[in-house]
Amino acid sequence: MRVTPFLRQNSQSVSAALRERVRRPALLRKLADPADLVPLFKNDDYSTNPRASQIGWSGFTGVGYPKTVPTAIADHVESNNLQANPETKKKFNLFVGASVGPEVEDRWARLDMIARRYPHQVGKEVSKGINAGRIDFADKHLSMFPQDLTYGYYNLKKKHGDPKKPLDWAIVEATAITEDGKIVPGASVGATPEILQSAEKIIVEVNTLIPNLEGLHDINQSFVPPHRQPYLIKHVKDRIGEPAIAIDTDRIVAIVESRKPDNTGANAPENDESRAIARHLIDFLSEEVAAGRLPKSLLPLQSGIGNVANSIIGGLAEGPFDQVQVWTEVLQGADPSPISLGYRMVTSPVSTDTFIRFFDSGKLSFATATSIKFSPEGFDHFYSHWSDYKNRLLLRSQQVANSPEIIRRLGVIAMNTPLEVDIVRTLSLSPPFPSLSAGPTKAHARTQYAHANSTNALGSRMLNGIGGSADFLRNAKLSIMHTPSSPYKPTANSRPTKTDPTGISCIVPFASHVDQTEHDLDIIVTEQGLADLRGLSPRERAPLVIDKCAHPHYKDLLREYYDRSLHECLARGAAHEPHMLRNAFKFHTNLLERGTMKIKGWDSDSGSGSGLS
Amino acid sequence: MRVTPFLRQNSQSVSAALRERVRRPALLRKLADPADLVPLFKNDDYSTNPRASQIGWSGFTGVGYPKTVPTAIADHVESNNLQANPETKKKFNLFVGASVGPEVEDRWARLDMIARRYPHQVGKEVSKGINAGRIDFADKHLSMFPQDLTYGYYNLKKKHGDPKKPLDWAIVEATAITEDGKIVPGASVGATPEILQSAEKIIVEVNTLIPNLEGLHDINQSFVPPHRQPYLIKHVKDRIGEPAIAIDTDRIVAIVESRKPDNTGANAPENDESRAIARHLIDFLSEEVAAGRLPKSLLPLQSGIGNVANSIIGGLAEGPFDQVQVWTEVLQGADPSPISLGYRMVTSPVSTDTFIRFFDSGKLSFATATSIKFSPEGFDHFYSHWSDYKNRLLLRSQQVANSPEIIRRLGVIAMNTPLEVDIVRTLSLSPPFPSLSAGPTKAHARTQYAHANSTNALGSRMLNGIGGSADFLRNAKLSIMHTPSSPYKPTANSRPTKTDPTGISCIVPFASHVDQTEHDLDIIVTEQGLADLRGLSPRERAPLVIDKCAHPHYKDLLREYYDRSLHECLARGAAHEPHMLRNAFKFHTNLLERGTMKIKGWDSDSGSGSGLS
Repeated sequence: MRVTPFLRQNSQSVSAALRERVRRPALLRKLADPADLVPLFKNDDYSTNPRASQIGWSGFTGVGYPKTVPTAIADHVESNNLQANPETKKKFNLFVGASVGPEVEDRWARLDMIARRYPHQVGKEVSKGINAGRIDFADKHLSMFPQDLTYGYYNLKKKHGDPKKPLDWAIVEATAITEDGKIVPGASVGATPEILQSAEKIIVEVNTLIPNLEGLHDINQSFVPPHRQPYLIKHVKDRIGEPAIAIDTDRIVAIVESRKPDNTGANAPENDESRAIARHLIDFLSEEVAAGRLPKSLLPLQSGIGNVANSIIGGLAEGPFDQVQVWTEVLQGADPSPISLGYRMVTSPVSTDTFIRFFDSGKLSFATATSIKFSPEGFDHFYSHWSDYKNRLLLRSQQVANSPEIIRRLGVIAMNTPLEVDIVRTLSLSPPFPSLSAGPTKAHARTQYAHANSTNALGSRMLNGIGGSADFLRNAKLSIMHTPSSPYKPTANSRPTKTDPTGISCIVPFASHVDQTEHDLDIIVTEQGLADLRGLSPRERAPLVIDKCAHPHYKDLLREYYDRSLHECLARGAAHEPHMLRNAFKFHTNLLERGTMKIKGWDSDSGSGSGLS
Repeated sequence: MRVTPFLRQNSQSVSAALRERVRRPALLRKLADPADLVPLFKNDDYSTNPRASQIGWSGFTGVGYPKTVPTAIADHVESNNLQANPETKKKFNLFVGASVGPEVEDRWARLDMIARRYPHQVGKEVSKGINAGRIDFADKHLSMFPQDLTYGYYNLKKKHGDPKKPLDWAIVEATAITEDGKIVPGASVGATPEILQSAEKIIVEVNTLIPNLEGLHDINQSFVPPHRQPYLIKHVKDRIGEPAIAIDTDRIVAIVESRKPDNTGANAPENDESRAIARHLIDFLSEEVAAGRLPKSLLPLQSGIGNVANSIIGGLAEGPFDQVQVWTEVLQGADPSPISLGYRMVTSPVSTDTFIRFFDSGKLSFATATSIKFSPEGFDHFYSHWSDYKNRLLLRSQQVANSPEIIRRLGVIAMNTPLEVDIVRTLSLSPPFPSLSAGPTKAHARTQYAHANSTNALGSRMLNGIGGSADFLRNAKLSIMHTPSSPYKPTANSRPTKTDPTGISCIVPFASHVDQTEHDLDIIVTEQGLADLRGLSPRERAPLVIDKCAHPHYKDLLREYYDRSLHECLARGAAHEPHMLRNAFKFHTNLLERGTMKIKGWDSDSGSGSGLS
């Protein structure tokens, strides 16, 4: 094998840790320094955008992403001031299963190195680039992104290199490489199998700081039609693959040793509202069990991210259900302070990550996901007690974890957070205050509403992307959305507008962007209460959602919108889903123009800058 | 067995035809006259609505529905003028897989006999009742309705009878009953298995006019989680069940002989626009084959209903692809006049049903659906040449035919009609002119835009329901929506407004009701052209959709909306999906107020009653 110039010539430089992890000796001859790999990254490959070659990274929810080579490229760009000159400027098309750590991706965005970014992102600089028109972004259901990549939908006009390989490069993190050259991922799988399959050239960052996670993963081969096979999973613990990702090792250009941790940070703190929502939900699930519509151990749970999800998982750790199973996208959750939902308290050596508490309580029998996102302390505990968890946990690719096939078969109970709910019919994953976008990256990414289920604030401003919310909500047996009724009001974590101490309403007449439809939702929960919409018509749903879920300061306005809409629509025989289209976005336009959703009324010239309450 | 009073005492009255079809002799003792069954239908059973008991019917797209017992009940109600008196008024909750013939369902609606109707309907009187607030209707994905029924989501508050049986009654059509008491359906399966499974009491109408269709069906058992199994279908022809529906025969209350045909009527005629759309589509599919992204025989096709679908299927019958397979919801299509798409013409004994021509051309190797909807002449031909078709055709339950699991696995190419498309991101299945609702039932149900994919005109007026469109569009390998760019303009089939000879635009700034999202669409086609949206960001999609698909009379208005929105949103750093929310529904409100979408411009006080073109 030809040793390319950037490879280390001296095998003495291979650390003992790396030698233990890379069990295929020939690959150690490809060991390189990240800085030496930088010249390989040209940006003139993709025919539709001559300035962008196509790169795929491992990583999902900021876990398991490559940390050293992207950093070396950014260092090179920054220190040589390449972006100041159109002749030297580098921009890349970047494909990752979901988000990666901000120190990598957000830095690339800040340096204006990203031309195109699919299908999900988290980070202030990335979303700033998207909303400023510098980054082309499209959010895709996370179950579909990997298949669309292998279908060739992201390289329709590629003319250079191997036309069968959509990506020029894959840069992935591994915790080991097996004797037969298979890649053992870190604490996420995401789209890594398909990104490896789709790339002409591969760089593997072997992370020797975190343990070899061999055995944690179940990797099945990703076929395309007409060769796709059923996923023969009937229980959350069923394995259908092997523990590592098979690749063509000839395409490995370099191996790099990395000792950087996943940059996860602390999680969102709970508060009274999140606990109230969790109480409503757990009570509802108990009633479903009592009515015989759910087994005593429930059905496999999917939970989203944020403090409401944390309160729910924390509640379940203390709650009335045993032998619970989890089928979810990401295991995440932290509650800095122990909570009480009226059930037996369980003490755990680590109480900051609710999923760890849920495991430790003995109530969680098995969990599967595509990523684990614990706090740094949670990961420390998890890795040091690895033997306690490894037999109750599996990580799968996002194509499998978010598969409509499996979610529907298992009858998953899906729980996610929207930020805006139509009174009548549609859901949007949407808008915090415009002013909040000024917050620092970490606060933005981790405040309770700027999460993976948010998309377009006020219809236009992209936050993170749809993520897997629609994979789960469309296919779950119980599709639940939970949110505080008025997310932005005076608390330690958010800032109301000066003119409106209540803040915006998450229940609105017409969602300003629709990601989930009325056909995909069973239950809405806020701290005010729970609306069970199953089997109801739109005219039954609207008053119920207002009555059970809306903030008291908005109930009258919402009722009046509905009553007026009903009156007008009945008059013209069009009252299935009553609306006044001329007023449908009045909450939103008033917020844009006057800083509050509290309009004076529904007459055409009314609006307000002062609160009604 | 106790012989209840309404049963025929004289076995001489059993026709030879019926004796041949009902191969379980004990059931013949339950033979009854429909009129004698009428007193069984009370309306005081369901606790949430004391005036409505819950009834399920067989039937899908107006095929395979019960025709005699519902008619006898309506006759009784009408001749005794029961609805005039609140004390005698009868209203029922009606559950059918999809639509049934208008002579049955629309008559029930006209007599105000329907309190609640799920999940899909076709008929002027039904939609009138829904939009007038008399009928509670909710449309649900057709793959999900049967499971929600078996989950108990439509009888959450039922307190009478067997709490495990959501329905009081099932009335189903059969073409035979086997020795072991299994039901052989007619030319649709739909939700019949789950409706039978969910009913306390069953009436079977054995139709001896149409042939015994034994062997046409593949019926698998419908499990609920945690007992649901994989659907082991890897090719469209794979069987996973048995040829008839197993039931508990003790629940059969009566058998009725029926000799009424399915009331299908003629289909939508093609025109120049539908042929232009078909040409664009077939050219696109040919290019995909040439690029290696589709096999030469394509992947299994799903086609919607209406004249565009007819033109596509007609084009495929003459087209360049061999060994084509179909995985669809309903086999339907008629073209009164042979068409030419520039490919070899095939003559067929029946040219009015394009799917029959597609079979006869030898190019269609196998088709599976949940319903067959041919014209009366098409059914005559189909039944008299039964042996030619029976080995190339299977009917399955709608839970299987529309299953996300199978659609995604097979990589189906889905083609459906919307009536409104956002320039930026969302699709709505929506609004013909308000004035069109005045048309007669048949014209309404069969005009090219009031079909199973339409939902809410101008955001509020329900047409038919979402049907299976989202089951297919979300999960297909290629998700295609096709529609004329300006559906209502002066042709023999539609009526423009007096003030606007162009008619409404199907490309609008913001869809007035959203059933499919931007995340679920790859291709938009109108007679103007085809927009390939795969891999594009919203800011790339909008100009492309306007350029390729919009009617020339609307292009400038749409471009100006987009340009102004982009300018405004860039100014506030929120330009991922540019919108002016205050103007987002201006096309629609102008149509409501002035009868045309042709506004004078986007300034806040502009509107128009006269055309721009």
